Amino acid sequence: MLAREVLQELIKVLGEENVLTEQEDLMTYAYDATAAMKHHKPDVVVSPNSTEQVAEVVKIAAKNNIPVYPRGSGTNLSGGTIPISGGIVLSMLNLNKIIEVDQDNLTATVQPGVIIQTLNNEVVKHGLLYPPDPGTVATATMGGSLSECSGGLRGLKYGVTKHYIMGLQIVLANGEVIRWGGKTVKNVTGYDLVALFTGAEGTLGIITEIIVKLIPAPEARKSILGVFDDVDKAGKAIASIIRNKIIPATLEIMDNVTIQTVENFVHAGLPMDAQAVLLIEVDGYREVVEREAVLVEQILKEEQAIEIKIAKNDQERDLIWLARRRALPALAQKRPTTVLEDATVPRSKIPDMIKAIRKIAEKHNLQIATFGHAGDGNLHPTILTDERDQDEMKRVHLAVDEIFKTAISLGGTLSGEHGIGIAKMGYLDWEFGEAGVAAMRRMKEALDPNYLLNPGKIVRRD
Amino acid sequence: MLAREVLQELIKVLGEENVLTEQEDLMTYAYDATAAMKHHKPDVVVSPNSTEQVAEVVKIAAKNNIPVYPRGSGTNLSGGTIPISGGIVLSMLNLNKIIEVDQDNLTATVQPGVIIQTLNNEVVKHGLLYPPDPGTVATATMGGSLSECSGGLRGLKYGVTKHYIMGLQIVLANGEVIRWGGKTVKNVTGYDLVALFTGAEGTLGIITEIIVKLIPAPEARKSILGVFDDVDKAGKAIASIIRNKIIPATLEIMDNVTIQTVENFVHAGLPMDAQAVLLIEVDGYREVVEREAVLVEQILKEEQAIEIKIAKNDQERDLIWLARRRALPALAQKRPTTVLEDATVPRSKIPDMIKAIRKIAEKHNLQIATFGHAGDGNLHPTILTDERDQDEMKRVHLAVDEIFKTAISLGGTLSGEHGIGIAKMGYLDWEFGEAGVAAMRRMKEALDPNYLLNPGKIVRRD
Repeated sequence: MLAREVLQELIKVLGEENVLTEQEDLMTYAYDATAAMKHHKPDVVVSPNSTEQVAEVVKIAAKNNIPVYPRGSGTNLSGGTIPISGGIVLSMLNLNKIIEVDQDNLTATVQPGVIIQTLNNEVVKHGLLYPPDPGTVATATMGGSLSECSGGLRGLKYGVTKHYIMGLQIVLANGEVIRWGGKTVKNVTGYDLVALFTGAEGTLGIITEIIVKLIPAPEARKSILGVFDDVDKAGKAIASIIRNKIIPATLEIMDNVTIQTVENFVHAGLPMDAQAVLLIEVDGYREVVEREAVLVEQILKEEQAIEIKIAKNDQERDLIWLARRRALPALAQKRPTTVLEDATVPRSKIPDMIKAIRKIAEKHNLQIATFGHAGDGNLHPTILTDERDQDEMKRVHLAVDEIFKTAISLGGTLSGEHGIGIAKMGYLDWEFGEAGVAAMRRMKEALDPNYLLNPGKIVRRD
Repeated sequence: MLAREVLQELIKVLGEENVLTEQEDLMTYAYDATAAMKHHKPDVVVSPNSTEQVAEVVKIAAKNNIPVYPRGSGTNLSGGTIPISGGIVLSMLNLNKIIEVDQDNLTATVQPGVIIQTLNNEVVKHGLLYPPDPGTVATATMGGSLSECSGGLRGLKYGVTKHYIMGLQIVLANGEVIRWGGKTVKNVTGYDLVALFTGAEGTLGIITEIIVKLIPAPEARKSILGVFDDVDKAGKAIASIIRNKIIPATLEIMDNVTIQTVENFVHAGLPMDAQAVLLIEVDGYREVVEREAVLVEQILKEEQAIEIKIAKNDQERDLIWLARRRALPALAQKRPTTVLEDATVPRSKIPDMIKAIRKIAEKHNLQIATFGHAGDGNLHPTILTDERDQDEMKRVHLAVDEIFKTAISLGGTLSGEHGIGIAKMGYLDWEFGEAGVAAMRRMKEALDPNYLLNPGKIVRRD
């Protein structure tokens, strides 16, 4: 419970309408999109309308030693926005202006509460594109996706959020406001705090303004689907595409469990006994897209795809992607709880990882479907379970542990795009060792010595 | 002077042949490529042959409170490698192995002493490219260019060093060795230390292994030269190229002072009274290069270029680039001292910046030639002077101050690609404010509390 005086201070800064304390309101901020996580209600939810108000809130919090949890749309998948120690949830949704689209410098300046898709709807008018496209692009905010360094389907060719963040305005833990970076392509002035704060999950400072890089929108695209009776053959096709210097915008894979489930759900015409499906989209200049699509088809044939489809028009394209887009909803309806994991390995290790996941599923008697971004090595093993079944959940946790161990042993990483949050904090020393975790802790303490900004995420007090 | 016991410890770890203490040897490590900088001899120069040896040296230094200066080829331009407080210069040139070129994952793993060009000579055999190309590409090391986050001519289309660094092995100030990042395109595990250490100028840790991203080498390229009688017209041409969604690999500009000097030096056929020359190279797929070259020519005409040349073959291409490549040597032979500055503004502000530099030159009665990377807003105002002339050097310093103030006021930054080092440390609070500099200091102290790693660069003890 917050002291009455603190609440009064918050109301004085923000106005009564931007300070929520009713239990029904607090309840809706007690969780995020992460499955099987304990809910924690905050003491208050505040919605600032300016950077100055954010700074005031942070100063009030600092003075009274109250945790602050910045929050966008709450779509994150690692428990990163759950207010685990109570305190203030700082909803950034009122800060939702697109401040500028600068066509000469190919940048946009936005407030953190802007929805990713809203920005893209605006820049497309100028023939431009903001490439990062997490699955939640229509809901997630720019601030949230920056703080989680979201990825998505276009990572292979276009990179992820961090490759598009050029400048930031940041409120530090002491309430001071700094600006870093800007509209220049080149910038080596001081430590790269723009990069450090991207993906820091709101634990080092609060982002209040963002300059992003835009690119010319590709003028053409073509989608190709390849069906395989063997995961290794699909893996060889992936390698061959890259070795032929084709970098598709999207290169997705679905395993047999996913194919079967999706096919039952949407009837897209996928063979139920296929062991892997590759969904490929090349984009860019018209002539190049034509040339690359032919080459991809040829490679799929060489690598013994049992079926190949090339979309001839937008309708056929949508059909190809329907199965992939419906993968998660299809899987989610099979069992009450869907644990969507995020295991990432070098692209060449995709077949090894898929086979390892299959073995782990068998060993622990679990249903695990695997799909994801084969082109950038980012797989989503999805465990279909029921969080009320304690025995099964124990096995789920064991399986998750083994999946991460396997990913790291294959030269991969704990998280490709979902972040560490609460969910993966316990695994960090597997990847970084104690020395690495200690280095992160020292950095956290350098910028937020009292652990007031999104505490209990990424690193905990020693 | 180092204590004899410390020297003995270093010799024990590295062998006598890798520990230099002769005055003649130390002298050559007392400076770097930066003009008009005071020389400082180190007490010893050591050349480790492994990460373990680097860690041992750092531990010896930490135990005895001795500064350590990591150094590649010493080509940097901000005094970043000068051992200003004496101590140990850690030459990384023995660590010069290309460990792996991974064609499936499009990565290379290298030691920090590898020369950039050596890496490119190797990867080109596989049709691949490591895009960062500072002017010193044939001399500078991967470790040095990573630590300075070098840029170069291809920044507009391909970005700079930081966009290609995927993984690092780092020796921390306490001698502990950590690994961060890896071969996966996506990685959001923990704070992005890979990004933080890139461009940190060796002040946060010593890099001992680097995983870089490679891209397919472009299959074609075409060079175009446009001559203008007015800087603003050149500026409009730059804007029009970008608005037409053409992103050239290279888009360089030279001002009138540069043109005159270079023309006298190489006789490339540039009109002596031209106010600006644009040098443009488009690259990529053959069909696209053809299409874009035609479009660029058309734009140059529309924006009233008084002369346009399109290279029809490699020989003509070399001629177009001869003037640009010889700009610095041509300028350097005019006066004894060449102060090569690095002022970076948003691309749209290039004409304003060039005109401002011209006014500053007139005001302080100095010769300043300006050329640089117009496409990415990174200009190199080059002051032709004589460091023995104290009165003129005073005016040089005043002019440099005004150049940086102007760059920042135009939304630019202190340094696009040369780094802060010693040279620009005093200007940092103009860009970041005291709160920003303090944040950097806290980060430095979190990772190197005793200021032993390249001390006196970027941030100083308070």
